Amino acid sequence: MKLYELVGRDKSNSFSPFVWRAKLALAHKGFEYETVPLHFTEIKETLSFADAKTVPILVDGDKVTTDSWEICTYLEDTYPERPSLFQSRSAARLFTFQLSMPLLVPLFRTIVADIYDVIDDSDKDYFRATREPRIGCTIEEAALDFEASFSTFKTALWPYQQYFSSADFIGGEAPTYQDYALYSTFLWARGTSSKKLLEDDDSIVRWLARMDGLLDGLGKRVKKID
Amino acid sequence: MKLYELVGRDKSNSFSPFVWRAKLALAHKGFEYETVPLHFTEIKETLSFADAKTVPILVDGDKVTTDSWEICTYLEDTYPERPSLFQSRSAARLFTFQLSMPLLVPLFRTIVADIYDVIDDSDKDYFRATREPRIGCTIEEAALDFEASFSTFKTALWPYQQYFSSADFIGGEAPTYQDYALYSTFLWARGTSSKKLLEDDDSIVRWLARMDGLLDGLGKRVKKID
Repeated sequence: MKLYELVGRDKSNSFSPFVWRAKLALAHKGFEYETVPLHFTEIKETLSFADAKTVPILVDGDKVTTDSWEICTYLEDTYPERPSLFQSRSAARLFTFQLSMPLLVPLFRTIVADIYDVIDDSDKDYFRATREPRIGCTIEEAALDFEASFSTFKTALWPYQQYFSSADFIGGEAPTYQDYALYSTFLWARGTSSKKLLEDDDSIVRWLARMDGLLDGLGKRVKKID
Repeated sequence: MKLYELVGRDKSNSFSPFVWRAKLALAHKGFEYETVPLHFTEIKETLSFADAKTVPILVDGDKVTTDSWEICTYLEDTYPERPSLFQSRSAARLFTFQLSMPLLVPLFRTIVADIYDVIDDSDKDYFRATREPRIGCTIEEAALDFEASFSTFKTALWPYQQYFSSADFIGGEAPTYQDYALYSTFLWARGTSSKKLLEDDDSIVRWLARMDGLLDGLGKRVKKID
């Protein structure tokens, strides 16, 4: 298997939360795979074979799958004999939306300037041209005003803080798709930003430590940005 | 079985979203039950037997269960041969928190003055004394400023609008606990407020119509407030 991923100036820094979802799913199902690290501006020219403009893309033999959700359901449907990613596929699908606007959007605004710092120099113009319209201001303005987005992000963490105060994983006793999707959000920040997103006594910190201990420490190996 | 519930001035108006969760769970599992309708101020004196201060309370033989979540898990564990409420009990538990602060809190502020209008006259002092500290202003101030809370509520609906645009139920092809918990939120508003919460073309409206068609039209029988 071959996984196309997005990387920063440091080509070992694979920070995309959507690529992380695919990597965690692959590891959960026990697959080894080769990676193809790409900068933003390399993606368009490289991915025409897949008729896609974004990573992750998974190539499994002659089967090409784009989009992290599609990759997860492809792996589940093609390899049902391996550990399952889903307890309820429909609830997992809803969860992708529950993460997206409420958590990923304010987190992106919170760390956008930090992401800008870790991407390759050849990507900076492209990133600015595509992301500034999305956030409605310049990267520098978002950096100055990050506390407002950070506050929105922290408010949106409340359900998870409540839940993890008395539960180990969203999957119950073991992680499931939703755990990996939420974890990918924090790995994105871990690989791009030095901002301290959580207080030490947050129940999410204890869950993150449990997640870091899984899959041979896959997520723990992300280099923290100082 | 006997279910203790909260009602308004009209004793057939059982509006509590948490009582609705218990009623929908009972109906899903095919149970008949007797109800004990109570006003807020009757609850404290009536429920001392259960060591509880809130409804719903379910009495099943000599077993007394308080709290809507506990009632649902009690029904599931005691009657596993009946239709299951859960695909993933842990994801369902997380969902109660995903509903609570993001959706129930802003909706409560949006309709608090409407709720005040439908409760019994004997409950009004108690309701004001307990709810105004919770919302941090008077009921009348919340009514004047309801658009701000309503806007927060509508923003929090985004994941559900996205999800229902291509799916029938959170349970997939049939409703599960999460569908009932979200539905109970809208039944609460249906029984207390004339505010139009959703545009006609909202995918949630189509899901509500599907929910209204279930369980012999249980939720559809709520009298709409004009």
